[in-house]
Amino acid sequence: MKLLRYGPRGQEKPGVLDAAGAIRDLSGVISDIDSATLAAGGLAKLKGVDPESLPKVDGSPRIGACVGGIGKVICIGLNYSDHAAETGAAIPKEPIVFMKATSAVQGPNDEVRIPRASKKTDWEVELGVVIGKTAKYVSEADALSYVAGYCVANDVSEREFQAERGGQWTKGKSCDTFGPIGPWLVTADEVADPQDLDMFCDVNGKRMQTGNTKTMIFPVAHIIHYLSQMFSLHPGDVIMTGTPPGVGLGIKPEPVFLKPGDEMHLGIAGLGEQTQKLVAD
Amino acid sequence: MKLLRYGPRGQEKPGVLDAAGAIRDLSGVISDIDSATLAAGGLAKLKGVDPESLPKVDGSPRIGACVGGIGKVICIGLNYSDHAAETGAAIPKEPIVFMKATSAVQGPNDEVRIPRASKKTDWEVELGVVIGKTAKYVSEADALSYVAGYCVANDVSEREFQAERGGQWTKGKSCDTFGPIGPWLVTADEVADPQDLDMFCDVNGKRMQTGNTKTMIFPVAHIIHYLSQMFSLHPGDVIMTGTPPGVGLGIKPEPVFLKPGDEMHLGIAGLGEQTQKLVAD
Repeated sequence: MKLLRYGPRGQEKPGVLDAAGAIRDLSGVISDIDSATLAAGGLAKLKGVDPESLPKVDGSPRIGACVGGIGKVICIGLNYSDHAAETGAAIPKEPIVFMKATSAVQGPNDEVRIPRASKKTDWEVELGVVIGKTAKYVSEADALSYVAGYCVANDVSEREFQAERGGQWTKGKSCDTFGPIGPWLVTADEVADPQDLDMFCDVNGKRMQTGNTKTMIFPVAHIIHYLSQMFSLHPGDVIMTGTPPGVGLGIKPEPVFLKPGDEMHLGIAGLGEQTQKLVAD
Repeated sequence: MKLLRYGPRGQEKPGVLDAAGAIRDLSGVISDIDSATLAAGGLAKLKGVDPESLPKVDGSPRIGACVGGIGKVICIGLNYSDHAAETGAAIPKEPIVFMKATSAVQGPNDEVRIPRASKKTDWEVELGVVIGKTAKYVSEADALSYVAGYCVANDVSEREFQAERGGQWTKGKSCDTFGPIGPWLVTADEVADPQDLDMFCDVNGKRMQTGNTKTMIFPVAHIIHYLSQMFSLHPGDVIMTGTPPGVGLGIKPEPVFLKPGDEMHLGIAGLGEQTQKLVAD
């Protein structure tokens, strides 16, 4: 199923796409698509529900983040071999892990606001993984059974904040609006192989990133196993699994960064697409 | 006021200390001491409430984390000049910022579990700052008006995960149970000067850390101002402001780390004390 949340920010209702791609209202079945619903095993209630039997949602409502009440957003750095090669960075021996503030998360088509002090705002299309049940000390073989589903994520990044302002990356990753996820939470049963998904990111209509999740250095199952040796992953936690080649920072001879009026358009095969306009904060 | 949350994990009720140090039940006034209550201006309801008029809580219930529903835990690294000198690190030019997973947060006296793969679990007494209202682009002069209150925090750290396993510190900071906060959220009006608070940490009865918040490189007001240039601070967000000298990693000639059966005891003048037993996970 392609689950989504629609409506004004902070008042999103749960929905599901029907066979024709129209939104159907899931409010009568579950209260939200969020960490609490996932923790309570709420997605099981959707089994056997025929989307066509649910009320059709009129118009084109705003689409919110595809999961609410997120406890943590964990990001993996330099996780594509072709991206690492492009940047000249060594292949990491273990996953590089950092956090994005949950307050950065927003809907897939909401405006991205460039912080006042920013000079180097950049794009990163990524496969997002939404955890479905608590994972601690799980084996790589079992790891994918802890996944509720997958989504498109844009790990928007301010490169100066990230790398030139003292130490840790989280500064450049956590700015408000820097975490669009969605449009859909595609349930894991609909993703045959999370390690074979084409992905792209266009800026102002020009293709900048082209990749496939098969070039991940650490695949999703390994990441879940690895993280769970250190801390619990909880229902509704989101993992952003790294970006393929083509970010603005890597452009030769001069890096290219985003400015107000620019537009990002990104997507992953089967998981949908996002479009964000850049505005000054 | 000294606010607290008591009761079983996940079922904490709000309380307040009376003049004699006994817990009084605040459930009739506010539903919780958490991000939602803070966001709704709930602490204003406590003005004029006489703790002695509230029901006394019998016995010695477990004390929970002093704030619930935390959106993010932001930590400042190497923020004490005497600690930086001790480690031989250069004085940071800007605050070093990293995140601790909110899933690491727990009560001040709950057991701290050493992860299975851990060899270097360490202590860090810190001043915790709890945000009371949304802060974005705030001046240093106004910054402290965004603080709901202060608490003791133990930024428990796994040094190998933090520094020897690839890149970013969050791995060693986010282990389950690595974020005891409390016992109390001491409202800001009761803390005359957050930059003049004595603090200590004992391990197995031996004094290991002795410090005072006056040796912070970046004081609380600057940290709030600084962070708010990058992202919003929301009600219930917690900032751990760095640790004074005396952590296990810094002990000469050999670092000392925690093992099952050890006990940490730490506190800050006016903000209360914590005691944690170490256990194997």
